[in-house]
Amino acid sequence: MIIKKNNLFGKPKRVLNFSSGPAILPEPVLKKASAEMLDWHGKGISVMEMSHRSDNFMQIYHETKKNFRKILSIPKNFSLFFFQGGASVMNSIIPMNLLNKKLSADYVKTGEWSKRSIMEAKKYCNVKIVATSEDKNFTYIPDQSSWKLNKNSAFVHICSNETIGGVEFHWNPDTGNIPLVSDMSSHLLTKNLDFTCYDVIYAGAQKNMGIPGLTFVIVRNDLIKSALPITPSIFNLEKQYKNNSMLNTPPTYNIYIAGLIFEWLIEIGGIEIVEKMNIKKSSLLYNYIDSTDFYNNFVNKKDRSRVNIPFFLKDPNLENKFLTMAEKEGFLHLNGHRSVGGLRASIYNAMPYEGVNKLVNFLKDFEKRFG
Amino acid sequence: MIIKKNNLFGKPKRVLNFSSGPAILPEPVLKKASAEMLDWHGKGISVMEMSHRSDNFMQIYHETKKNFRKILSIPKNFSLFFFQGGASVMNSIIPMNLLNKKLSADYVKTGEWSKRSIMEAKKYCNVKIVATSEDKNFTYIPDQSSWKLNKNSAFVHICSNETIGGVEFHWNPDTGNIPLVSDMSSHLLTKNLDFTCYDVIYAGAQKNMGIPGLTFVIVRNDLIKSALPITPSIFNLEKQYKNNSMLNTPPTYNIYIAGLIFEWLIEIGGIEIVEKMNIKKSSLLYNYIDSTDFYNNFVNKKDRSRVNIPFFLKDPNLENKFLTMAEKEGFLHLNGHRSVGGLRASIYNAMPYEGVNKLVNFLKDFEKRFG
Repeated sequence: MIIKKNNLFGKPKRVLNFSSGPAILPEPVLKKASAEMLDWHGKGISVMEMSHRSDNFMQIYHETKKNFRKILSIPKNFSLFFFQGGASVMNSIIPMNLLNKKLSADYVKTGEWSKRSIMEAKKYCNVKIVATSEDKNFTYIPDQSSWKLNKNSAFVHICSNETIGGVEFHWNPDTGNIPLVSDMSSHLLTKNLDFTCYDVIYAGAQKNMGIPGLTFVIVRNDLIKSALPITPSIFNLEKQYKNNSMLNTPPTYNIYIAGLIFEWLIEIGGIEIVEKMNIKKSSLLYNYIDSTDFYNNFVNKKDRSRVNIPFFLKDPNLENKFLTMAEKEGFLHLNGHRSVGGLRASIYNAMPYEGVNKLVNFLKDFEKRFG
Repeated sequence: MIIKKNNLFGKPKRVLNFSSGPAILPEPVLKKASAEMLDWHGKGISVMEMSHRSDNFMQIYHETKKNFRKILSIPKNFSLFFFQGGASVMNSIIPMNLLNKKLSADYVKTGEWSKRSIMEAKKYCNVKIVATSEDKNFTYIPDQSSWKLNKNSAFVHICSNETIGGVEFHWNPDTGNIPLVSDMSSHLLTKNLDFTCYDVIYAGAQKNMGIPGLTFVIVRNDLIKSALPITPSIFNLEKQYKNNSMLNTPPTYNIYIAGLIFEWLIEIGGIEIVEKMNIKKSSLLYNYIDSTDFYNNFVNKKDRSRVNIPFFLKDPNLENKFLTMAEKEGFLHLNGHRSVGGLRASIYNAMPYEGVNKLVNFLKDFEKRFG
């Protein structure tokens, strides 16, 4: 096996990765993972090789859980689960676990990902669409006053940041006694959260919390009740609760990487600092896009995502040229999702302000040449 | 983030890891993963950061699939899927996908893992136990002549290597027209396979093929039919078949590590060499255990596992002393599974012959001192 020695402690020329996920990771995290690969903390073993029930891995596991709870100030009456299967499987797991003898669930439809949640939930219950922004091509979040909640529904489901459409909830819905479930895949850990408003939160790791193969699920304890009998055991909240999320072998290395990211996030100042940076980075990009009609973002200003910023060229014929030049300059994955086309910059926690600044300069330059 | 520079290209003192999984990995694989961490093939990006639909990742993905098929000579009429959730979730996914309007399935009960498969399958169908070795505490594989197959069952399920009990099928069952499904989690890729005898094979990666969070599923194409309507889409074989196992984000880094292991396996000579080594390694250990009554293995000789070798001390009071001394000498995880006690050495592909030899010398030495 040929191993090329890389510039591990030098500075490899790294691209600026605007992928919507799997996405850019903090460089110190990659460096630490690389350095510890063959020998974790002098134990003579790689994290990849650790039995999930060994003392070494349990230390990583508990530290990761502890830091995640600390960063988000998760209250004691919420449990944290590490699942596999991505947010996609949660679309089944949520109804399987939360229906609890009720026959319907309320869904808010704000774009591609909530649409997929709805399609999947229909396998298990009567889905009621209580609000949608379909009338304006999913470019806004429907005001709560328009929501028609059903008091007999088991829960209300939202996707609080739509990765493809680039809309984000910047306010917390009030669903009264009906539990609120939110798919926060692309913006969990990008800002502070008010846990008095949410009852279940889930998110795939591959945007702001690590690599694919790990899903974070946060559930208010009193909602952990009997799942439907068809629920696979490893996706049964009650069983996983009793087994400390270790009913079967968890994705140990994926959890370790998430743990390194949490350490990094605490070191750079915690969630308040991160949220401020995300506001600053997204404002920089939106302000420039809004300052010219060469680029356009069609999302309602108050509902714009801080992390997924879709935009379009006035002249769509320039798109290919734009993407080719961008890649040549080291800006990766600025294409929009294949279902909507156009362009998109995903700027997660690990994207430095300087990276967004470089992108804005590139946008300016491209406009000068072709505008 | 403090990063300790390790002896990356030197020789860190590594333990000899006899864990049943997650388990020992080939050192060249770890070295390559470490070296490529920040900059894969000069592309300025980590594999962890690659979009799963990018050209870079697609190259890794296809190469990994190709090498796996090559190593096992998987025939063209079989498809290969990369799933999440471990073998545990397959216990649900198999009946969900294979029942195909039939109401029952046949199961062979040979130990802890087939027991779990049976418990889970009962949620979806009528489970018929067609053979069991429970009468002798799961220390043998029931001869096929004793199996009572049901011609109306959708499939026959076996666990062809029981990781806890240490029994292994060294022959291929003949189930006629009824599809044969095998959980090969702990011995897939340890020997050649006759694909005319098996119809569905699945295995978690964390024994011989990588790290937890990835499950390999091999299915004969004509068995990919309509799943039960309750099946989560990402576990629907038909849907995944149409989407090239990419219906949602696959566990990209876990797939990359599997790919490095396949490269390594091809480099050391392929599956024939590996099988010979596994016979040689396990014989060395069994021969020593059988040569003395100080240690005992109670499995029927012709059904003994080549990879999971449970054994017991004549005097169980010496167990703690044994484990403490072993760990001090760098032999890790020689304890038996907590459900059965005793001792166990898991010797997967990545465990070198020299490692088993050192273990045998330690056994001899321990016997000399305390026998």
